[in-house]
Amino acid sequence: MAEPFHCDFSQRLFMGHLGNHMLNAADFHSTDRGFGMRYLMTIQRSWVLSRLAIEMEEMPRMYTKFNVETWVESAMRYFTSRNFRVVDSEGKVYGYGRSIWAMIDTESRQPTDIFAIDNGAINNWIVQDKECPIDKGGRVKMSDGAELVRTIGTYYNDVDINGHVNSVKYIERVLDLWDIDWYRTHRIKRFEIAYVAEAHAGDRLSFYLERQQPSPSGELEFCVRICKDGDTECCRSKVQFF
Amino acid sequence: MAEPFHCDFSQRLFMGHLGNHMLNAADFHSTDRGFGMRYLMTIQRSWVLSRLAIEMEEMPRMYTKFNVETWVESAMRYFTSRNFRVVDSEGKVYGYGRSIWAMIDTESRQPTDIFAIDNGAINNWIVQDKECPIDKGGRVKMSDGAELVRTIGTYYNDVDINGHVNSVKYIERVLDLWDIDWYRTHRIKRFEIAYVAEAHAGDRLSFYLERQQPSPSGELEFCVRICKDGDTECCRSKVQFF
Repeated sequence: MAEPFHCDFSQRLFMGHLGNHMLNAADFHSTDRGFGMRYLMTIQRSWVLSRLAIEMEEMPRMYTKFNVETWVESAMRYFTSRNFRVVDSEGKVYGYGRSIWAMIDTESRQPTDIFAIDNGAINNWIVQDKECPIDKGGRVKMSDGAELVRTIGTYYNDVDINGHVNSVKYIERVLDLWDIDWYRTHRIKRFEIAYVAEAHAGDRLSFYLERQQPSPSGELEFCVRICKDGDTECCRSKVQFF
Repeated sequence: MAEPFHCDFSQRLFMGHLGNHMLNAADFHSTDRGFGMRYLMTIQRSWVLSRLAIEMEEMPRMYTKFNVETWVESAMRYFTSRNFRVVDSEGKVYGYGRSIWAMIDTESRQPTDIFAIDNGAINNWIVQDKECPIDKGGRVKMSDGAELVRTIGTYYNDVDINGHVNSVKYIERVLDLWDIDWYRTHRIKRFEIAYVAEAHAGDRLSFYLERQQPSPSGELEFCVRICKDGDTECCRSKVQFF
């Protein structure tokens, strides 16, 4: 359900909470199939979200029930792609998501072989014929002209069970770069984020914003770079409004 | 369920997310009985949370399922008190909450008569014999010696469906005043907050912190005052650690 206090002033679910539902769906789906976060913790492995893209036709309205479907689209040794579809019980599709995950050794923080888990068990769960009709996205290109628009601290509540700033917090902080009045007249068409380096509580995050040339279809596109102390890049994000 | 990304570095549910579950329980419980937020919106009324106190023996661990029970303890013309008990399916009690609510006219922002709703329907739902063995709390006393320890902005994601900074965000921001290392060696025994005035997106919030004299039982007690632009008080909070 789109819980009331997870909805914005327009009574629609916040993008960050939708992102959290997708992360949960990914976790529950992989747990049910033997390669979830909880099991991986016992063998010193962890999934790391590398990219997430979400395109919504409409955000669920307050109190609306909806389902987040997820499936593995493909798996390679070091990356797997997992898609999402947000749908209600009558089959109405709200939108889609795409994500890319790596698996790391939690000690060395180095990428590890996904196929090493239970003899490549993930290969048994690849679904190739389910459509995810949104762009895969790619590297977010930014010039040196991006402007520093905000610097914020990170605190206890920003940090997840892995000791890093929670992926969802970056989504919220990027979307916080626009004020309420902007959201009164614009809707998010597509949100995309690539996670580059992990931040920890106490790191200060700087946000650099650059507006792209208007697209032929008139969408407003912005790119955001988030850096931690100094200029170590943590994330890059692209947001399209219409 | 204590969702994994709603848990802190120690894999225990964040207090803010527990607060959100309590707000949901209050909303669902009152909706089922004809005086919920959603109905009140149609008659230009709204519940406003005035005070919340939470005492936990233990915070639910990641992936643990738990229930939030709620009941109305008493109702007067302008205030009602609602309690909470957090319990698992085997009857293990994690802790309790107490809350005080007012009802306002959403146009005038003035308090209105709770008994005017459906001929005092709330009186049919008062439970007097269910125990809530935590202190009721009261006015948080602070001296002029409280120190300004942080000032933060408020943004799009901080604002709820009523257009005000979400009650849960204050809980998180207060608890963010202590760093991760503090939480490695201290646990929250009791969290208490009184909501005084509403803040809006764009308001800057200043946090004033004052440590109380150690109690005989050795608990560490802190009081926090949150003010918006200038020195208009928004909230007062008291946090006990042990």
